[in-house]
Amino acid sequence: MRRDGELKLFAGTGNPKLAEDIAAYLKMPLGDLKISRFSDGETYVKFNESVRGVDAFVVQPTSPPVDHNLVQLLILMDALRRASADRITAVIPYYGYARQEKKDAPREPITAKLIADVLTTAGADRIITMDLHADAIQGFFNIPVDHLTAISMISQYIKEKNLENMVIVSPDEGRVKKVRQVTGRLQAPLAVGYKFHPDHHVSEVTHLAGDVRDKVPIIIEDMITTGGSVCECVDSLLQHGCKPEIYVAATHGVLTGPAMERLSRPEIKEVIVTDTIALPEEKRIPKLKSLSVAPLFGEAIRRVHERESITSLFD
Amino acid sequence: MRRDGELKLFAGTGNPKLAEDIAAYLKMPLGDLKISRFSDGETYVKFNESVRGVDAFVVQPTSPPVDHNLVQLLILMDALRRASADRITAVIPYYGYARQEKKDAPREPITAKLIADVLTTAGADRIITMDLHADAIQGFFNIPVDHLTAISMISQYIKEKNLENMVIVSPDEGRVKKVRQVTGRLQAPLAVGYKFHPDHHVSEVTHLAGDVRDKVPIIIEDMITTGGSVCECVDSLLQHGCKPEIYVAATHGVLTGPAMERLSRPEIKEVIVTDTIALPEEKRIPKLKSLSVAPLFGEAIRRVHERESITSLFD
Amino acid sequence: MRRDGELKLFAGTGNPKLAEDIAAYLKMPLGDLKISRFSDGETYVKFNESVRGVDAFVVQPTSPPVDHNLVQLLILMDALRRASADRITAVIPYYGYARQEKKDAPREPITAKLIADVLTTAGADRIITMDLHADAIQGFFNIPVDHLTAISMISQYIKEKNLENMVIVSPDEGRVKKVRQVTGRLQAPLAVGYKFHPDHHVSEVTHLAGDVRDKVPIIIEDMITTGGSVCECVDSLLQHGCKPEIYVAATHGVLTGPAMERLSRPEIKEVIVTDTIALPEEKRIPKLKSLSVAPLFGEAIRRVHERESITSLFD
Amino acid sequence: MRRDGELKLFAGTGNPKLAEDIAAYLKMPLGDLKISRFSDGETYVKFNESVRGVDAFVVQPTSPPVDHNLVQLLILMDALRRASADRITAVIPYYGYARQEKKDAPREPITAKLIADVLTTAGADRIITMDLHADAIQGFFNIPVDHLTAISMISQYIKEKNLENMVIVSPDEGRVKKVRQVTGRLQAPLAVGYKFHPDHHVSEVTHLAGDVRDKVPIIIEDMITTGGSVCECVDSLLQHGCKPEIYVAATHGVLTGPAMERLSRPEIKEVIVTDTIALPEEKRIPKLKSLSVAPLFGEAIRRVHERESITSLFD
Amino acid sequence: MRRDGELKLFAGTGNPKLAEDIAAYLKMPLGDLKISRFSDGETYVKFNESVRGVDAFVVQPTSPPVDHNLVQLLILMDALRRASADRITAVIPYYGYARQEKKDAPREPITAKLIADVLTTAGADRIITMDLHADAIQGFFNIPVDHLTAISMISQYIKEKNLENMVIVSPDEGRVKKVRQVTGRLQAPLAVGYKFHPDHHVSEVTHLAGDVRDKVPIIIEDMITTGGSVCECVDSLLQHGCKPEIYVAATHGVLTGPAMERLSRPEIKEVIVTDTIALPEEKRIPKLKSLSVAPLFGEAIRRVHERESITSLFD
Amino acid sequence: MRRDGELKLFAGTGNPKLAEDIAAYLKMPLGDLKISRFSDGETYVKFNESVRGVDAFVVQPTSPPVDHNLVQLLILMDALRRASADRITAVIPYYGYARQEKKDAPREPITAKLIADVLTTAGADRIITMDLHADAIQGFFNIPVDHLTAISMISQYIKEKNLENMVIVSPDEGRVKKVRQVTGRLQAPLAVGYKFHPDHHVSEVTHLAGDVRDKVPIIIEDMITTGGSVCECVDSLLQHGCKPEIYVAATHGVLTGPAMERLSRPEIKEVIVTDTIALPEEKRIPKLKSLSVAPLFGEAIRRVHERESITSLFD
Repeated sequence: MRRDGELKLFAGTGNPKLAEDIAAYLKMPLGDLKISRFSDGETYVKFNESVRGVDAFVVQPTSPPVDHNLVQLLILMDALRRASADRITAVIPYYGYARQEKKDAPREPITAKLIADVLTTAGADRIITMDLHADAIQGFFNIPVDHLTAISMISQYIKEKNLENMVIVSPDEGRVKKVRQVTGRLQAPLAVGYKFHPDHHVSEVTHLAGDVRDKVPIIIEDMITTGGSVCECVDSLLQHGCKPEIYVAATHGVLTGPAMERLSRPEIKEVIVTDTIALPEEKRIPKLKSLSVAPLFGEAIRRVHERESITSLFD
Repeated sequence: MRRDGELKLFAGTGNPKLAEDIAAYLKMPLGDLKISRFSDGETYVKFNESVRGVDAFVVQPTSPPVDHNLVQLLILMDALRRASADRITAVIPYYGYARQEKKDAPREPITAKLIADVLTTAGADRIITMDLHADAIQGFFNIPVDHLTAISMISQYIKEKNLENMVIVSPDEGRVKKVRQVTGRLQAPLAVGYKFHPDHHVSEVTHLAGDVRDKVPIIIEDMITTGGSVCECVDSLLQHGCKPEIYVAATHGVLTGPAMERLSRPEIKEVIVTDTIALPEEKRIPKLKSLSVAPLFGEAIRRVHERESITSLFD
Repeated sequence: MRRDGELKLFAGTGNPKLAEDIAAYLKMPLGDLKISRFSDGETYVKFNESVRGVDAFVVQPTSPPVDHNLVQLLILMDALRRASADRITAVIPYYGYARQEKKDAPREPITAKLIADVLTTAGADRIITMDLHADAIQGFFNIPVDHLTAISMISQYIKEKNLENMVIVSPDEGRVKKVRQVTGRLQAPLAVGYKFHPDHHVSEVTHLAGDVRDKVPIIIEDMITTGGSVCECVDSLLQHGCKPEIYVAATHGVLTGPAMERLSRPEIKEVIVTDTIALPEEKRIPKLKSLSVAPLFGEAIRRVHERESITSLFD
Repeated sequence: MRRDGELKLFAGTGNPKLAEDIAAYLKMPLGDLKISRFSDGETYVKFNESVRGVDAFVVQPTSPPVDHNLVQLLILMDALRRASADRITAVIPYYGYARQEKKDAPREPITAKLIADVLTTAGADRIITMDLHADAIQGFFNIPVDHLTAISMISQYIKEKNLENMVIVSPDEGRVKKVRQVTGRLQAPLAVGYKFHPDHHVSEVTHLAGDVRDKVPIIIEDMITTGGSVCECVDSLLQHGCKPEIYVAATHGVLTGPAMERLSRPEIKEVIVTDTIALPEEKRIPKLKSLSVAPLFGEAIRRVHERESITSLFD
Repeated sequence: MRRDGELKLFAGTGNPKLAEDIAAYLKMPLGDLKISRFSDGETYVKFNESVRGVDAFVVQPTSPPVDHNLVQLLILMDALRRASADRITAVIPYYGYARQEKKDAPREPITAKLIADVLTTAGADRIITMDLHADAIQGFFNIPVDHLTAISMISQYIKEKNLENMVIVSPDEGRVKKVRQVTGRLQAPLAVGYKFHPDHHVSEVTHLAGDVRDKVPIIIEDMITTGGSVCECVDSLLQHGCKPEIYVAATHGVLTGPAMERLSRPEIKEVIVTDTIALPEEKRIPKLKSLSVAPLFGEAIRRVHERESITSLFD
Repeated sequence: MRRDGELKLFAGTGNPKLAEDIAAYLKMPLGDLKISRFSDGETYVKFNESVRGVDAFVVQPTSPPVDHNLVQLLILMDALRRASADRITAVIPYYGYARQEKKDAPREPITAKLIADVLTTAGADRIITMDLHADAIQGFFNIPVDHLTAISMISQYIKEKNLENMVIVSPDEGRVKKVRQVTGRLQAPLAVGYKFHPDHHVSEVTHLAGDVRDKVPIIIEDMITTGGSVCECVDSLLQHGCKPEIYVAATHGVLTGPAMERLSRPEIKEVIVTDTIALPEEKRIPKLKSLSVAPLFGEAIRRVHERESITSLFD
């Protein structure tokens, strides 16, 4: 079928390796652009090749440094729009500020909505993202959002380990529905931890429903930030008699603060994340397995460009 | 006359001291709010007092770290809007990205316009700012912009020195018109350097029009970033036989990179800036004089709230 | 403090009794307007008193007939806007289509967002609503949303019963956080049912965490539609040995289809709802207790008009 | 010439038969989608085939039940937009609320404009409609409106009857201009009734200009709602001595309330409407002739998709 | 009741005399502003007094030179908005381009809607206008439109003449409804001419319904442009035996081209217009009576500012 | 590569000759449309050929009569949009009101921004323009602006004269940067006049930097309006001993008021302008050379339509 303009793929500085891998999947080079910062920290960008009439995709997770990556993405889109790109798709493998998607107290912002609004203001015609912390964020946009998931890929990776006596663990009730998809794929039972939040971003496992005794737990999360929730879940699992060989899987490895130290405890056998967020060298420890989402994003971009259905990539 | 809601003044983290000084001028406390960052760098804000129906002013220069200060300002406004503030004024003493206000080459962004757009998207009803790098930025907004200037205050400060044989120097042709206002106030002649820009943000003085021999030059700038332009202007002035006691005045002291070192050369007798940008301790050298714009902003805020004319503050 | 225009309160036909009760709380008459339908079902409205410059509040739940109530609300706001009302607040005690707030499958709408958009298009300056099915709906709006809750009122009502040996029950994991607020107020333990959704709007209780044996369960819901989830929860509770005197409390009594029949089973001792949705005569069975939210909405409207904080009404 | 995406045609529940007939004209199947209602009356829709990049047309008259049909149309477009349809055309054979296109009294809404606004908000890129009650409604949109007419088709049908001694009758002055088009096509004289509206939607024929004695009157209307205006016109015609074999033709057969009874009077020989509005079985009386607009809409859709001029369909 | 800011009234150059008369009615001076044109025809405006926070009204009919008056009005509003006026009301006594309010042929503009859009874009918060050529233009705006009429004032003027044997004449069917209001006020019968438009802006009276023999006709129009329609109506009236002393009344005296010559024929006894459009000296012939709408607009402005109902001015 | 719809080129009445020449360059006829004015000065337009789905370009400089040409352009775009043009490009060879791009005093408008806003409101998808008086105007738009320049063409024309001893003169400091481009192309030295503006649009040369003695000056301007600045520059050049054979070159020949008289002085040997603005017969004096920008605009339109880079046309 007809294609809109020429497909061109550009990388912000948020995760250039992933962008390169997506380009490799698509068998095309990354577009030529210059991104620099002045001494006062202001970002300057310039596209070095024509983008007139092209179907432009910009790969930029809004991972830390989140504000910088976000503003850079806005600037890149502004330049594309003014240079007459036909359509601009913001490819945001990790959507920062996603946990601030509702007011938990009066006079808070809803920052995830604000981000959606400024992305649209800057010229985004479409968003491709992955495993949003909250599904409702899709509704924050009026432009189309293609919401991919790494759950299938992670499930497949675990399946190939042929582990015996697995139990899939959701560390809190909020994501049970998503985690159940993993139990289905792995034909394994489910256990759920029930967290109590005494304060924002502080979590405490209070209860564990499901039988984990002598089983190999596979903790499934959407993201690991400081590793606090994961560690509490591990403690709880061990108290309930699970085997001390626990797998932890999450789409987004933010891994800030004490995360690497917490994940290094011996009962955690393997930590599985994806490359939605660039992993610096110092975090590349042996038991950390990084799966690449490049084929998923590459295929999504190809299909979006070719106007093919990408529904199969949502599962 | 009637007042809209109650006036409340809030400070972002960009320049809390200036905000406090403005509050002191207004004889009112700063509003109570919490601003924190999570370990992944995401900003969290919460207003601790009611803002329902108030006439809210948020003081936040978008000085370095520019992206962080900008996004924080957006988030603060989002929270104010959702908490039913009646009117939101972004008080931006220094407007970052102001030098990217036009395309110098194809496929560049116009970031200063983008910033204007996202400020409006986030809920700004009005802007108060000072000595924008380019006047046309006012036109980037459709909301009212009150554009203050520190030129009068700086002129007055210099006047009180009773220097003899002054010459007012504009380091480049672009700001001659503004600098002429200083010559009028100080009854001093004008000299102009004509810069040639071989590349973006790189400057080179090529010519000096006006007599500077044996005179005390007062270089007038809107901002000092790395101090490069100033230094070249100083060299040129010295070559043309000025006295080796040069004054440098600028509204905005961004002072990044080698700025402090460059300004330390002995021929520069005094550097005059204002406190639109917070000055860290290490930059508080003896010959750097910082004038406070707090009374100017305080008075502007009072008049905006009271619906009085602020035209006199524009001169 | 200053007041915007005059406060006027108008009722759509969605729940005129509630509107009257709110007006009584505010000690003011309802505004005079005409609402009629032509033979082809088209709605005609006309305000019979001046609304120029007033602070208008329109009370209209988007309960069944949902599309009609919604469109009528839009039309009322269009007329207010054109007749120069100063500010229009849509008071929507029950927000219909709230369960369609995210895509559970590809090519679904996000109707709750669409509703937010058309309310804004029609002229709403502010929303006051109660116990939204999903908190993220607040983020669908860029206008302020005052999100009240009946949880406190319901808790108080139950507390006054002085029941012994209560257990507070959340029929599914999604609302545990809200239900915990009740446990705190009533000093009672918590039990949680874990639902599995084989299909949209079909629910099945699969698991019950927490001890309910010989206890008096208080099931807490945001809304009761067909009563299916409640019934399954009741079955599960009975299987786990609770006392056969179960209380069911929900903010919104939609009560469609087989709801009344299901709720009539003898193990359910009392059903507590509020009057966010008008209750027709045939549903006014003895064991159905309807608490009035009129004082809550009345107080919220008064404070919004007076620019007072309404934070205390959010708990 | 180039075509935008693939043409796909979808039917709301407003007039599925017409949608099928349009599809048949276009020699293509209707798109696969699910539309259902929950027990509380909320509409749920889901498209069962990919709409990514397609040129989507949704056929939905906003005939009774008008609010339901309207909201369903909005929801269908919301789903299409989020599922990345390239262009969305709302095909609205009958545009409800068209008679409320101006204020006849203070503090009335202009509902026809409100409908235009919410259609645009929900994602309509274009409207195709027919014989709007008021031409100015076209101006309520900023998106293109293709305004078809059935006058040519109706004229042709009457012409083929080879009636002798016809007189074309406009029941009121407002539509004389449109009715004159029929006189031209049928080479017949014109008579005009002059209505006086004592109240909204109540009409009374007061005067008849033109000679009708012993003639066969053809009353031309845009729509028949309750049949009241038509009946008064018939009375007036009979009083002026026309033959008691009167033809009544209208594009839109809303036919509510006493319409069928009124039209059954023997002096009315035939009632000609089109299928813009679905005709239930009980209204399919022998003397009611329904002409199909499917070829007109089908041809318009084809040409819009093919970027061909459709001007000839406007006559 | 509360008043918004201070009321200030400004005059464009379209009809300064009317603006002065309105100011006199309001017992306040016109605001101080400068309007000039450069040699290339570009308009320059500057407000010479503070407009911060004021409730600004700008009086400017978009009468000939229509484009110039329109653009000047846009520029005046842009300056007011940027100078922080609290609310801007465009007072447009005569709304130009009102006859292009629908498409009579394919590929025409709907200029009256375009004008509504650009007025809103330039910052209008409200419109006050009079006797729009088409009522639907009110719906072209989403901001409030206060639509005054001069019919009452004109009727009163005629009534005081105590003419005997009057007949009120509507020259075409389109305005019968408005003209009937005059018949009611003057207790006089109605006659209607039925125009046939062979081409845009060309009119031809074809029929006269109602008895005019030996009567004194009062022709009621909304506007007189070239006087063509009026003359044809006069001819037709004379042919039907009216008295040769005909009165012609219209709200808007555009009076272009051959208008003055046509109106000079002796059978026309008096021409009554208002001062919505400035009347140049050469058109001030003895039989032309100009009634002033200044009290009507003045009173409307006062009430809008005071938030009082102005419904009584609509009749 | 793919082309959007069919390319069609239309001419407003601002500069029909230029439009014809562009059409000739593109080897295609101008589109068929009717533009007329009624006796009251209102513009009427109608496109006489289908524009459905086409890639429409409308050539209309907003030169004097500026308001009329502007409004006509808006009307043309409104008609195109409503007639379903796929994309509308406003080709504005001369952008009127460009000198009002910032506030020089309080309570002024920023008319150049207002124009940008109303062009967008009326339906422009893209702008092609030339040598804007201020670069920042590009940032006033959020739609793409292709900003062409005639500097290269003018330089080439001068080069071919093989003049000896040229000096390129910028009459004021504001355009030095642009004028330097000419010096590079012609390998000639630069001289700069420094204007002092005592009042808006009044200019006075105060200083001349650079050596002009016995040289042939080439004054480079963006536009010549009344010729005042040029004359003062000529005086200054002569005082500094240049040869009395001065060349004056400007992209835009507005040439109003005393311009022709001023330019006729014998020391000015040739005046070079382009045909962005139509040159009436009386201004076609022998020493006025008009270069045609038709090939530049034609090539830009072709490339925009073909999605080719037009960067080379910006130099």
